[in-house]
Amino acid sequence: MNSTTSMAEGGSGGVITCKAAVAWAAGEPLVIEEVQLSPPGPLEIRIKIVSTSLCRSDLTAWLSEAQPQLFPRIFGHEASGVVESVGHEVTEFEEGDHVLTLFTGECMSCRHCASGKSNICQVLGLERQGLMHSDKRTRFSVKGNPIYHYCAVSSFSEYTVVHSGCAVKISSNAPLEKICLLSCGVAAGLGAAWKVANISKGSTVVIFGLGTVGLSVAQGAKLRGASHIIGVDTNPEKSEKGKAFGVTNFLNPNDYDQPIQQVIHQMTDGGADYAFECVGDTGLITTALQSCCSGWGLTVTLGVPKDKPEIAAHYGLFLSGRTLTGSLFGGWKPKSELPLLVDKYLEKEIEIDGYITHNLMFEDINKAFDLMRQGQCLRCVIHMPK
Amino acid sequence: MNSTTSMAEGGSGGVITCKAAVAWAAGEPLVIEEVQLSPPGPLEIRIKIVSTSLCRSDLTAWLSEAQPQLFPRIFGHEASGVVESVGHEVTEFEEGDHVLTLFTGECMSCRHCASGKSNICQVLGLERQGLMHSDKRTRFSVKGNPIYHYCAVSSFSEYTVVHSGCAVKISSNAPLEKICLLSCGVAAGLGAAWKVANISKGSTVVIFGLGTVGLSVAQGAKLRGASHIIGVDTNPEKSEKGKAFGVTNFLNPNDYDQPIQQVIHQMTDGGADYAFECVGDTGLITTALQSCCSGWGLTVTLGVPKDKPEIAAHYGLFLSGRTLTGSLFGGWKPKSELPLLVDKYLEKEIEIDGYITHNLMFEDINKAFDLMRQGQCLRCVIHMPK
Repeated sequence: MNSTTSMAEGGSGGVITCKAAVAWAAGEPLVIEEVQLSPPGPLEIRIKIVSTSLCRSDLTAWLSEAQPQLFPRIFGHEASGVVESVGHEVTEFEEGDHVLTLFTGECMSCRHCASGKSNICQVLGLERQGLMHSDKRTRFSVKGNPIYHYCAVSSFSEYTVVHSGCAVKISSNAPLEKICLLSCGVAAGLGAAWKVANISKGSTVVIFGLGTVGLSVAQGAKLRGASHIIGVDTNPEKSEKGKAFGVTNFLNPNDYDQPIQQVIHQMTDGGADYAFECVGDTGLITTALQSCCSGWGLTVTLGVPKDKPEIAAHYGLFLSGRTLTGSLFGGWKPKSELPLLVDKYLEKEIEIDGYITHNLMFEDINKAFDLMRQGQCLRCVIHMPK
Repeated sequence: MNSTTSMAEGGSGGVITCKAAVAWAAGEPLVIEEVQLSPPGPLEIRIKIVSTSLCRSDLTAWLSEAQPQLFPRIFGHEASGVVESVGHEVTEFEEGDHVLTLFTGECMSCRHCASGKSNICQVLGLERQGLMHSDKRTRFSVKGNPIYHYCAVSSFSEYTVVHSGCAVKISSNAPLEKICLLSCGVAAGLGAAWKVANISKGSTVVIFGLGTVGLSVAQGAKLRGASHIIGVDTNPEKSEKGKAFGVTNFLNPNDYDQPIQQVIHQMTDGGADYAFECVGDTGLITTALQSCCSGWGLTVTLGVPKDKPEIAAHYGLFLSGRTLTGSLFGGWKPKSELPLLVDKYLEKEIEIDGYITHNLMFEDINKAFDLMRQGQCLRCVIHMPK
């Protein structure tokens, strides 16, 4: 039985059986299983995933043993697809629409969505319990047992169900196999540079961590006309990749006896205008703050630390004019603003293709996890069976 | 011999002998001594102090045993006076000008002064070595031995010498015995509210610590039309004083079993728009951050902690959209902007008089230290002999 057959059996709006990559336990290789997927509930849509890329947060959550009760689980949150069916009360989507999934949604009406200054939706924000926002239940099951979601997206599956506020309709001209990267990492970096930091022309920028997110900050900084873009990474191979996205000076902390913030102060005559922490290490957030200049130095933290969640910083860093802020999904209001980024890609104003280091078929999804674990990829895009 | 006689002896530009309140050791009562004061050097001015108020940083530095080598010392940095004589190359001041002293100066030409976005002057910024910026020496002596400065101002003296970048000429119509408060505390609070936080109309503000600085933040918030101004202080007497300056809700943490940030979240439906830490306690900076709302909550730290200089905060506070920044002297560029605040006082747009709880003669200066130590005053203004 293949998924098409089961769809036909379920019919539009019925339960379908499809293939999904199920993580049965933390750190154990995913197993492609036949799973049952509910029809979309009220205000939900069911999406046929076309392409989905692996983001570091999937890897981190998969490896984490902190929440064993959330397995079995279907990871994946950076994805593109086509609407297969829509639930009751859905007015903004119809079958066949091209969409990106949103790991942090936008209800358009809560205090934050209405504010014009926050993308931290109070209704459809980051979901951490492995469930759907609306009814705190799952939509996937295997042999009658629930399979938990990830970020209420779970895109490592041929089909998924998401809240209609957790997907956004995009131009049908956009290549779904590439623009899935705008569903998280690339958009997160560009937004941190443009919306959160609002980098100004001629400024000096330092970026800690040259993964997809950090390199997207670099691209954003370059497009804003930053004069110096300093990339910091302990992986020497990131030097070349950095250049391709705008990094003007690559620093490997292992090459220096001094603390890297001192090296940066010397390079920048007193500290950078902006620093971005794209690793997920609270110690590096402190280093980033220390790498900024007094008076107006702005540090933006984007990463999700795996351990040691407390940031420590001397009060004098702030009293002398430095600022620390955070960036979730680059500050973008996802439904309102993501289509504009897709259009920018179509108009060749931003680059995405260069972040795709590997294209894999769905059955090879575990290879993506291996590559990211070994630091050998930027983005692996996983393509679903047509 | 009084100071006038000694001035006549020294002549304009010569060494003068005058009375100053000398701190001989940490925490020991000041002693009014006859001291010698050099003439103003190049780009310096000598000021006859008219009024000087006691700020908590004077008290903290006086009590601190961290730098015993900086005694004997003349404290005081919040002061008004009249220019007595000017050194070579001084073009912007002349004898008789009314001035406020500046504990953090403005050279008008360094990268920060020229930037338009920083008041952290790289040439005449906060001086911590008890010396003058230009030659790293003192201008005061007693029996031939140097007396150290405080913030390169040392206003607890009939006369003092400051760099011309560490004083600002103000309207001669302003009452010097009152507007000395704009030399530090009141301006610091107003600037934190207006320039650093840029409080918007209808917003919710929480202020930790209702001393002169915190109450000046309250005044600033009220003038910006904040809808709720929550004042937090463990001293119940601050409730009434708070109301006078705009506090709409007074909270004494000792009255609650819950952590105060939880009380604030309940009162504000998810956290305040702005939080200000005006005590000088890094633990309270964390509490202030936790009292802000996600999405756009801004915490401003103004205090100088006496101990435990490290701020600790969970990364999630930032990733969900909170920001932490600092405010030194309210972000004002002191020479460029302080005269405008003086004018606002003259036009009755801001209040100062209500912060003055005590007026003391110079010989009673130790009483000011006692009152502040016991939390029984806002500002004690010390008036010099005419």
